[in-house]
Amino acid sequence: MAGKPVIEIAFDTPRLEEKLLAKAVAAKGAELRLTNIKQNVFTLQKTSLDVCLVRCVSLYSAIHTAALREGAGVRSINSSESIFLAGDKVLTVSRLRSANLPIPRTAVGLNTRAAEKALEKVGLPAVDKPPIGSWGRLIALVRDIDDFKLVAEHREMLPSSYMKTHIIQEYIDLPNRDIRTIVIGEEVVGAIYRYRSSNDWRTNVALGGEPVQAFLNDELVEISLRAAKAVKGDVVSIDVFETTDGSYLVNEVNGVPEFKGLMKATGVNVPEKIIDYVIASTRR
Amino acid sequence: MAGKPVIEIAFDTPRLEEKLLAKAVAAKGAELRLTNIKQNVFTLQKTSLDVCLVRCVSLYSAIHTAALREGAGVRSINSSESIFLAGDKVLTVSRLRSANLPIPRTAVGLNTRAAEKALEKVGLPAVDKPPIGSWGRLIALVRDIDDFKLVAEHREMLPSSYMKTHIIQEYIDLPNRDIRTIVIGEEVVGAIYRYRSSNDWRTNVALGGEPVQAFLNDELVEISLRAAKAVKGDVVSIDVFETTDGSYLVNEVNGVPEFKGLMKATGVNVPEKIIDYVIASTRR
Amino acid sequence: MAGKPVIEIAFDTPRLEEKLLAKAVAAKGAELRLTNIKQNVFTLQKTSLDVCLVRCVSLYSAIHTAALREGAGVRSINSSESIFLAGDKVLTVSRLRSANLPIPRTAVGLNTRAAEKALEKVGLPAVDKPPIGSWGRLIALVRDIDDFKLVAEHREMLPSSYMKTHIIQEYIDLPNRDIRTIVIGEEVVGAIYRYRSSNDWRTNVALGGEPVQAFLNDELVEISLRAAKAVKGDVVSIDVFETTDGSYLVNEVNGVPEFKGLMKATGVNVPEKIIDYVIASTRR
Amino acid sequence: MAGKPVIEIAFDTPRLEEKLLAKAVAAKGAELRLTNIKQNVFTLQKTSLDVCLVRCVSLYSAIHTAALREGAGVRSINSSESIFLAGDKVLTVSRLRSANLPIPRTAVGLNTRAAEKALEKVGLPAVDKPPIGSWGRLIALVRDIDDFKLVAEHREMLPSSYMKTHIIQEYIDLPNRDIRTIVIGEEVVGAIYRYRSSNDWRTNVALGGEPVQAFLNDELVEISLRAAKAVKGDVVSIDVFETTDGSYLVNEVNGVPEFKGLMKATGVNVPEKIIDYVIASTRR
Repeated sequence: MAGKPVIEIAFDTPRLEEKLLAKAVAAKGAELRLTNIKQNVFTLQKTSLDVCLVRCVSLYSAIHTAALREGAGVRSINSSESIFLAGDKVLTVSRLRSANLPIPRTAVGLNTRAAEKALEKVGLPAVDKPPIGSWGRLIALVRDIDDFKLVAEHREMLPSSYMKTHIIQEYIDLPNRDIRTIVIGEEVVGAIYRYRSSNDWRTNVALGGEPVQAFLNDELVEISLRAAKAVKGDVVSIDVFETTDGSYLVNEVNGVPEFKGLMKATGVNVPEKIIDYVIASTRR
Repeated sequence: MAGKPVIEIAFDTPRLEEKLLAKAVAAKGAELRLTNIKQNVFTLQKTSLDVCLVRCVSLYSAIHTAALREGAGVRSINSSESIFLAGDKVLTVSRLRSANLPIPRTAVGLNTRAAEKALEKVGLPAVDKPPIGSWGRLIALVRDIDDFKLVAEHREMLPSSYMKTHIIQEYIDLPNRDIRTIVIGEEVVGAIYRYRSSNDWRTNVALGGEPVQAFLNDELVEISLRAAKAVKGDVVSIDVFETTDGSYLVNEVNGVPEFKGLMKATGVNVPEKIIDYVIASTRR
Repeated sequence: MAGKPVIEIAFDTPRLEEKLLAKAVAAKGAELRLTNIKQNVFTLQKTSLDVCLVRCVSLYSAIHTAALREGAGVRSINSSESIFLAGDKVLTVSRLRSANLPIPRTAVGLNTRAAEKALEKVGLPAVDKPPIGSWGRLIALVRDIDDFKLVAEHREMLPSSYMKTHIIQEYIDLPNRDIRTIVIGEEVVGAIYRYRSSNDWRTNVALGGEPVQAFLNDELVEISLRAAKAVKGDVVSIDVFETTDGSYLVNEVNGVPEFKGLMKATGVNVPEKIIDYVIASTRR
Repeated sequence: MAGKPVIEIAFDTPRLEEKLLAKAVAAKGAELRLTNIKQNVFTLQKTSLDVCLVRCVSLYSAIHTAALREGAGVRSINSSESIFLAGDKVLTVSRLRSANLPIPRTAVGLNTRAAEKALEKVGLPAVDKPPIGSWGRLIALVRDIDDFKLVAEHREMLPSSYMKTHIIQEYIDLPNRDIRTIVIGEEVVGAIYRYRSSNDWRTNVALGGEPVQAFLNDELVEISLRAAKAVKGDVVSIDVFETTDGSYLVNEVNGVPEFKGLMKATGVNVPEKIIDYVIASTRR
């Protein structure tokens, strides 16, 4: 490639993260294209773009943007495949499992009846997740069969057939926090603890909880890199449970990772590292 | 592998096709597992299955079934990736385009505003499709801007954000029919014409229209095999437009293909050929 | 009126009840019109019908059928107004309250934030109901704030803005059963106990629970008649809670009442009594 | 009543209209209560309110607010019944018809199959409306059977069963405009023409179209008052079609009327007139 690499940042809702990424593109001497995908026509024609960094909050917009850029011969980071593998939790657990990564005991039912059987298999208490959803939304702690019925009746009313699938996992009794790491290419750039707030059992919706830097030991690094690879991710965050006996379980992977909290807690310049990786990818 | 291969047919709504496939498994001396995915618990544990042949009508159930089998180390035909690539038409057109296959002129808008611009790009009359949908459902012929507004207002009311994406394609003035071919591995096993019925502009919802055997020339064979490869399909059907100037355009690919009509029109024993392919795949 | 009264039974899903009502019309010498509203065109033109007995399971179909018959000058039993007042529980509690009938302590929030305040007002444990729904569906027992969040997150995902309204009521510690009475005009024709099944906290979804005849004392009769009047009902069922201190609370009213269970438990010929009332109404 | 009347203005989305109404309450020496219904707990307890003026944009919030105030003994303007009768167009046409008001030729089907028959009855071109919706949304001009299929397929995908009902009306060839009048109690306070914009066939979504004062003749006054009475409205707007032969047809009624355009075009102080009426109602 001759000249400056042309890097697109595709977004739907611009957040602090996207602004920092845009600044980093300029700082690195690359050419920036900011695309609001809500106003853009995708034509699948040849473009001058080298890479598209997909930063859409909406999962489907992220997948479609990545695919449409790939269709025009542009590399997408992450790839459409990776965004889908991380975005649909049925696919995520399947990939983590076939890569032999440790995950909570899991059973999946594709409708209410099958989910009730899956719950019997996993036992109580359990966690019941739909395949898609961010920030812990719709993830239910199932303490008894009344809880399950409540969840199942509501899920049946949801119009998307997607929501009829229940991922049932053993409830892991966490030490009040989970771990999030960020992977960029072959490097784990940092890790934080996310503490559970006092009025919610979930860590990922922690309201008042400040993120705190976590120590990155070899095991956490290895698990994070393998999890990123399992979903074919270039730039992803990994949510890890640390059980009371000190072992790790991979919980979820995010294909359009937020990194504001980790930057603040660790001082790592995440956007710079992402853009370095993106630019390097244009040279291969 | 020692002993008989164990083949699962996974379904949600058993149709004639699934019954014929089940018979073929028995006739070939393989061991059959029939799984109604509405009653099955998927545990991601090791199983005795060799291959899962995914025959679910629901796209999401098909993707999830394939992924969950893959997660347990079982080969899925088609793969979860392929079912998704064929099932989401944004991904299909992107893959067809990057494989240099001929497709109708296409522009995509990820919401109403962007879709209106996409329509301006493509021009009138146009066809407006959502990313997901079978049997031609929700595919609109847009003759003027009032048609587009009607479609867009309804799409905005649909709860799934998926449905906000509009795939706008030039309207191809077909000779009253389109072509469907079926690909199994490296072979195109047959082709049919599907005629438009008198009371609908779409060919794929033809009500009274009998399928008729079509001649498989070299170009059609080549295009079909390349389209199957573009979406990484083992067993797929390909919908092809034959334009008035005699050239071909690939319209859609189906990752859980129906084949009853083609069997009847051509006499080809499709289920036997599929099961031969499935069994052979266990030997590689 | 000269000649035989013409009585329409309008239904969407024919059940035993509709068949018994149709027989009773014939037995009484009236002329029967059976209308499947899924296949009927309503034109608002003059008709030969005298009364339409609305028996649609779908609430909206019931309201629309009643209104369209009224628009054509035909008396509807129940009236469209009454079906709506009984069908939307916000309206029901409002009418019961302004008629000074005893109801559980109730607070209503029209969205999640307001509902959380309503829950604080009522206290825990509480019952959280959406305005519309049959057979106890989506009615949640809220034991703590996690239960409430679970319900609220799911309700927010439901596409209908209707479902964002939460009716929060004190949880009444019932003696394992509630009471259902049936009112026809000025008469309470019977009462049953409905027992809670062992695996659900709700009485109205009792699976194995046989209905048992209940004694109709003066207070129950009076409350039932006043509740029917509060929603302007001709033929309704009334769900009553009997608290541990022996007093009654009106819970819900049903404007398209099922009566199979009450017939069986009490021996009362409910369909005959309904049709007698319907025919008498044509003479006024 | 002793002392100043206490008037509540209940809103969800405060617009200019609500601010003008609030000012008028103060100017008339009444006591104002502004209630954002998204943050309010409704308890059905006795209150100090005399009247609630319901100004919620959401139909269901408007109905529920009115009903909950009525349940606490407070007069609601409009009443919950009236807001529902005007808000659901099946009920509106039924009431207009039974009050012998002129309306476009109308047939109603409660699902797709019945709607197709209704369309045959009414003929082409026709207008196809769902029961609920504001600003002309989802109202379709049906020029041929392809248009109808497009509408019906989309409606079937909508999750609310409400949306399966089709109100089919003859298409009225208007002189490029329709008429809107505003009724307050027994008075028609003004009328405007609403012109169709150049890029939409509907008058009620006119984008650039300025409202223009219309002359209020006796017939228009009489029709407006009768239409308001048909839906039991205190304060409503009436949409009227003026056909090419000079006769009038009542199209719709709005139970939470916007009046900004009419104020501007006619100079009538609508908010003052509404508040005068509201205060007078507390004296009866």
